Amino acid sequence: MKFIFFSLFFLPMLLCSSVECIHPHPLDPLTPSELNLVRTIILKAYQTSTKHINLTFQYVGLHEPDKPVIHSWLSSKTKTLPPPPRQAFVIARFQKQSLEITLDFPTRSIISTEIYKGHGYPMLTFDEQAVASQLPFTYEPFKHSLKKRGLNISHVLCSTFTIGWFGEENTKRTLKIKCYYINGSANLYMRPLEGVSAVVDLDEMKIVAYSDKHVIPVPKDEGTEYRVSKMKPPFGPKLKGISVIQHDGHGFTIQDHSVSWANWVFHLGFDIQAGPKSLFHTKTQRRNDAYYSGSDGTPVKISNAFCIFEKYAGDIMWRHTEIGIPNEVINEVRSDVSLVVRAVSTVGNYDYVIDWEFKPSGSIKLTVGLTGILEVKAATYTNTDQIKEDIYGTLIADNTIGVYHDHFLTYYLDLDIDGEANSFVKANLETVRVKDQKTPRKSYWTVVKETAKTESDARVNIGLKPSELVVVNPNKKTKLGNTIGYRLVPGSVVHPLMVSDDYPQIRGAFTNYNVWVTPFNKSEKWAGGLYVDHSRGDDTLAVWSLRDREIENKDIVLWYTMGFHHVPSQEDFPVMPTLSGGFELRPTNFFESNPVLKTKSPASMHFPNCTSQHYYD
Amino acid sequence: MKFIFFSLFFLPMLLCSSVECIHPHPLDPLTPSELNLVRTIILKAYQTSTKHINLTFQYVGLHEPDKPVIHSWLSSKTKTLPPPPRQAFVIARFQKQSLEITLDFPTRSIISTEIYKGHGYPMLTFDEQAVASQLPFTYEPFKHSLKKRGLNISHVLCSTFTIGWFGEENTKRTLKIKCYYINGSANLYMRPLEGVSAVVDLDEMKIVAYSDKHVIPVPKDEGTEYRVSKMKPPFGPKLKGISVIQHDGHGFTIQDHSVSWANWVFHLGFDIQAGPKSLFHTKTQRRNDAYYSGSDGTPVKISNAFCIFEKYAGDIMWRHTEIGIPNEVINEVRSDVSLVVRAVSTVGNYDYVIDWEFKPSGSIKLTVGLTGILEVKAATYTNTDQIKEDIYGTLIADNTIGVYHDHFLTYYLDLDIDGEANSFVKANLETVRVKDQKTPRKSYWTVVKETAKTESDARVNIGLKPSELVVVNPNKKTKLGNTIGYRLVPGSVVHPLMVSDDYPQIRGAFTNYNVWVTPFNKSEKWAGGLYVDHSRGDDTLAVWSLRDREIENKDIVLWYTMGFHHVPSQEDFPVMPTLSGGFELRPTNFFESNPVLKTKSPASMHFPNCTSQHYYD
Repeated sequence: MKFIFFSLFFLPMLLCSSVECIHPHPLDPLTPSELNLVRTIILKAYQTSTKHINLTFQYVGLHEPDKPVIHSWLSSKTKTLPPPPRQAFVIARFQKQSLEITLDFPTRSIISTEIYKGHGYPMLTFDEQAVASQLPFTYEPFKHSLKKRGLNISHVLCSTFTIGWFGEENTKRTLKIKCYYINGSANLYMRPLEGVSAVVDLDEMKIVAYSDKHVIPVPKDEGTEYRVSKMKPPFGPKLKGISVIQHDGHGFTIQDHSVSWANWVFHLGFDIQAGPKSLFHTKTQRRNDAYYSGSDGTPVKISNAFCIFEKYAGDIMWRHTEIGIPNEVINEVRSDVSLVVRAVSTVGNYDYVIDWEFKPSGSIKLTVGLTGILEVKAATYTNTDQIKEDIYGTLIADNTIGVYHDHFLTYYLDLDIDGEANSFVKANLETVRVKDQKTPRKSYWTVVKETAKTESDARVNIGLKPSELVVVNPNKKTKLGNTIGYRLVPGSVVHPLMVSDDYPQIRGAFTNYNVWVTPFNKSEKWAGGLYVDHSRGDDTLAVWSLRDREIENKDIVLWYTMGFHHVPSQEDFPVMPTLSGGFELRPTNFFESNPVLKTKSPASMHFPNCTSQHYYD
Repeated sequence: MKFIFFSLFFLPMLLCSSVECIHPHPLDPLTPSELNLVRTIILKAYQTSTKHINLTFQYVGLHEPDKPVIHSWLSSKTKTLPPPPRQAFVIARFQKQSLEITLDFPTRSIISTEIYKGHGYPMLTFDEQAVASQLPFTYEPFKHSLKKRGLNISHVLCSTFTIGWFGEENTKRTLKIKCYYINGSANLYMRPLEGVSAVVDLDEMKIVAYSDKHVIPVPKDEGTEYRVSKMKPPFGPKLKGISVIQHDGHGFTIQDHSVSWANWVFHLGFDIQAGPKSLFHTKTQRRNDAYYSGSDGTPVKISNAFCIFEKYAGDIMWRHTEIGIPNEVINEVRSDVSLVVRAVSTVGNYDYVIDWEFKPSGSIKLTVGLTGILEVKAATYTNTDQIKEDIYGTLIADNTIGVYHDHFLTYYLDLDIDGEANSFVKANLETVRVKDQKTPRKSYWTVVKETAKTESDARVNIGLKPSELVVVNPNKKTKLGNTIGYRLVPGSVVHPLMVSDDYPQIRGAFTNYNVWVTPFNKSEKWAGGLYVDHSRGDDTLAVWSLRDREIENKDIVLWYTMGFHHVPSQEDFPVMPTLSGGFELRPTNFFESNPVLKTKSPASMHFPNCTSQHYYD
C-alpha cells in the first residue's frame, strides 16, 4: 500500500487537544503543561528582579524533531519506540534583542540560546498590540486631533498595522496605529479616522511619531452594521433550513491529534505563526482547543480553532450513463463525500476561510474563501462625478473608498510521495506540426517531460505555457511502469503587479513565481522569512532558491502561491460575500486504477441532490 | 429593483413539462402536442407516397420570438397580453438536402422553407446512428475481420463518431463506425477493436469505406467493469450516509417552466441541440421531463433531464470575527445555500455534469464536472519500458492507451444587465511606477477601464494581462455613480494547442479566445455553427466576429470558453473520478451594497459543518 506523507500548512494542519495526549505523536503541538514549563524555565533563566520580568514571549512552538527521527518512530511497527524527546523553540524579546531559545523537556533545560542578528523582528504579541493601541488616548496631539474633528474620545478605537520596510538603513521595532470611530455599528473598519496615524516603538512602548495630515469626516455609521442582533426587518431573502442526521454517526474518528476518515489518516496540529485567530464552532469534536503562548508565556486557549466535518454537497464522485448497449440503459452514479478541515483566520478586518478537503479519490482540494471587511479610506466624495483623479480604489459607499489590493497565500507542501526521494516534473504540453503528408492532420499536441534538476528549473509562472506539474517518486512505478506522483491542478492564477525592486515586492519576492521547489531544509519554512516584521527580504523563499540547489530524487518541498487581485465593488460593503479560489492536489499514476471504483455511495442518503439513485418523496 | 435577464445556455436552461403549460411563456419548449403537430404538417407537405416517407427530422425546436416581442409580453403588467404566436423551426433531411422549415402553430402552416446551401450537415439523429452502427454486422469484410481476430460476433458492439472535415472539396454526409467487444463488462470503450473502422454514408445508409489496418488484441475484460451489481467485495472505503429533512419543505417553487428560489426567478427550457442525453433522478420535481423529436418526428421523452436542488455544502456566505473592540468578541456567520440546476450530458463515453449554481448573493457559479469513460486505443504494450516512441497518450492499463485530448466548452451568455443596452468593459490592472520622490513606494497598481467599441476590442485571452471583464449597463449607475454590471471571474483557463490553420482548429476557431462579445443576433447561437457535422468553419463565432461590429451600448452577447487539457492517468481507468472546473458571474456594483447583509442563516440548520452558530450534540 502506498502512502503519501505530507507536512502541509498554510494554516495549521495540526490539531491540538486540551488534555495530555494518550497516544503522543512527535508532531503534537505543545500542551498547556509544556507551555507552562517553557515559561518557568525561561523566566528563571532571565529573571532580572523578583518583581519585574522584561522578557516577552513572541513565539513559542514545537521544535520539530528531524524528519528521519519522525519516520523511524512512525515506521516502528508496534510504536514501542519511545517518541523522540520533546523540544520547544522560543523567540523572546529581551533588552531590545530577539533571542532564539531551544528547550529540551526531558532535561527541563535550555539547550541553546542565540541572539538573532539579522534584520526584521519576530511576530507581534496580542498583548503588545493591545497596549500600543491604547497609547493614543493619553497622547495630547491625538486628543487635539479628536477635538478638531468634533469626535467623542469614548467612541474611538485604535488598531495596529505592521509598517514594513522601505529601504531605511536602521529600523526600530515600530508599529503603526490607526483609529476608528464606533458609535453604534461594530464595523470600525468602515469608519476610519482618515489622516491620523501614530507610530509606536514597541520596545519603548511610546509614540515616536504622529501625523494628522488632513481632516476628512468619518464616514457615517448608517449601513455599516453587520450584527443580526442590531438589525431591523425586513430580512431576506429567506432560506429554508435542513436537518441532517447521521444515523450511523459521523464517519471520522479523532484520537488525540490523529484523524481517520475513509481512506485517509493524518495528524493535525497547530502553530501560532501559521495560524492566528480562529474562532468558530464545531459540532463534532469538543477536543478542537488550540493553545498558544501569551506574551508572558502563560498558555492561552483558542476554542474551536478547527472545524472538521463531512461535506455532502451533492457532488458526483463519478458516473456513467450507457445507452450504447442495445436494449439496456445503464446508469451508475456514486455520490461524493469529502472530509473538510477548516480553519478561519481573521486578520483584523479580513476573514480567510481555509479549507483542506480530503476526497476518497485521493485528491486534496485546497480552497480559500475571502470574506470579512474591506480596508477602506475615508474621502469627501459621495458620487463618482465629483472624482477628477485616480482614487486608487472604488467609491463603495458615501465617503468611503475601497482601496485596490492583493492577497497572496503561499502553501508549504512537503509532499513525500511514498517516500522522501522525490522529483518535480514539468510535463509540458507541446504543439507539434505534422510532417507526414499522408495524414490530413496538420498538428497535434504531445507531452514532453522535463525533470527539474535544480531549483532554477522549478520556478514556474502558471499560464505562460501549458504544463502539468507533478511531484513524483522517480524510484517507484506502477505495475505498468508509470512513475507515481501527485499533480497540482491550479484554479485561477495571479501574479504580482508591483515592480520587482519595490520594497514590498522584494520582501514578498516569493510571489514572483506561482510554483517553487526547494530541497527540504528544516529552517526554510516561512516563505517570507521567520522575522517578517520590518524584514528586508533577505531571508525569503526567493533568496533561498537563488542557491540553485539540486532537487532531483531528493526530499523536496513544493511551494504554491495563489491569490486574488481585488478591485472592490459596492457589494463588498459593509462586509463582503465570500469570494473563493483554490487548487487541487490530484493523484497521477499514484494508484494502479481508479481508487474509488469500488466505493459505494453512502447508504441511507436522502438528500436534496440528484446523485442518489433512489427516488424519494 | 434591478434585474438581470439572461438567456444562458451551454446545456439547456429551460425546463420542460410533461403537460401543456397552464401559464405559457414565449420561451417554453415545444410540447408533445406541438411536436406532433409539426410532424403532421410536414409529413403532409412532403408525403411522396402513402407508404414511405423519405424525410427525417434532424432538429425540431422552438423558433423563438424576437427579443422585443418577448420583453413586451414579460413587461405587460398583468400578463394579459396574449403570448406571441408559437412557432417551430425544423431542419429536415429530404432527398439528400437539408431543409429549413419554419412553422406557425396558430395557423397550423409552414411559413417558410429554404434549402440549406452551405457546407456541413445538421445534427445526427439517434435513429440513424443506431441503424448505421448495425451495418457492419451484415458486411462481409467486417465479419472476416472478426474471424481473423478470433472474436465472437455476438459480443461485438459498434458506435458512431462524427468525421469532421479535412479540406476535402466535396463531402458526403458520412459517419465513422468503430467497434468494441463486450463479453462481460459493460465498459465497451475500454475494449476497442483497434484498427477496424467503417465509414457509412448516412443518406445512402451504406458502408462506403472500410479499413482493417492492423491486428491488435482487444484489451482484456478484467478490471473494466463499473456496475456495482457486477462487482464482488471488498468494497470501500466506507462512507457514512446522512438523512436530510427539510422541515419546511424545499425552498424553491416551480410553476410550469418558471423557477423561483430566494431572490431568483428564472425560466428554464430545453433544446435538443444544446442538450442531448440527460438521464438521472431528482427528488424534488416530477415535472422535469424534456421532449425532443425523434427522427420520424414523434416526440421522445427524456425523463429527468434536469435536477434542481438546494445545495448545503457547509460553505460560508459571509462572516466576520471581531476582537478589536475591548471586552467584546463578535462572531457573525451566515451559512450559504445555493440552488443548483444540473444537467448531465453523456456524449458516448464521456459524462459532463453541468451545474448552474444560483447564490443569494446574486452570483451564478458555472461548473463542469468531467467524468465517465476515457477514449482509448488498444496497443500491444503492457509496460512503459516496451515503449520506444511517442504513443500520444498514457499507458493506463494493460494494452490500453488513454489518448491525450482536450475538452472545450463554450457558454453563450446573453446577459441583459437591467436592460439590453450593455457594454463590455475591460478593467485592466496596470502597474504604475511612482514618480513622486517623497514616498518610498516605487510602484502600485491601478485600474484603467477600456470599453470595447467593436468586436475586435473584446476578444480576450485570459492570463496574458490581468483584467476584470465586466458586462455593464452604461446608462445605469448606482446612487454613488458606479456603472452597474456583472463580471466574469474565471477559474483555470485553457487555450488551444493546435495550429490555427489545422482543420479542427479552423472549425473550432471559437476557442482561439476565451472571451468574445458579439452584438445580439438571433441567428448567431451556435459557436461552431448550426451545421457542425462536416462543417468547414465558415459559420463560427470567429467568423462572425471578423465583421468587427459595434458592441458598445447595444444588446450584446458574452461568449466564454473554458476547457481541460487531459493527459490521462491510471486513476482514470476504467472510469474517471470527476475533475471539475468552472467560472463565476458576479455582481459588480450591480447592488448598492451587499445584497445578503440582511439574509439570515437558514433556521433549524443542523448540519455537519461549522458555519452554524449553534452547538448541538
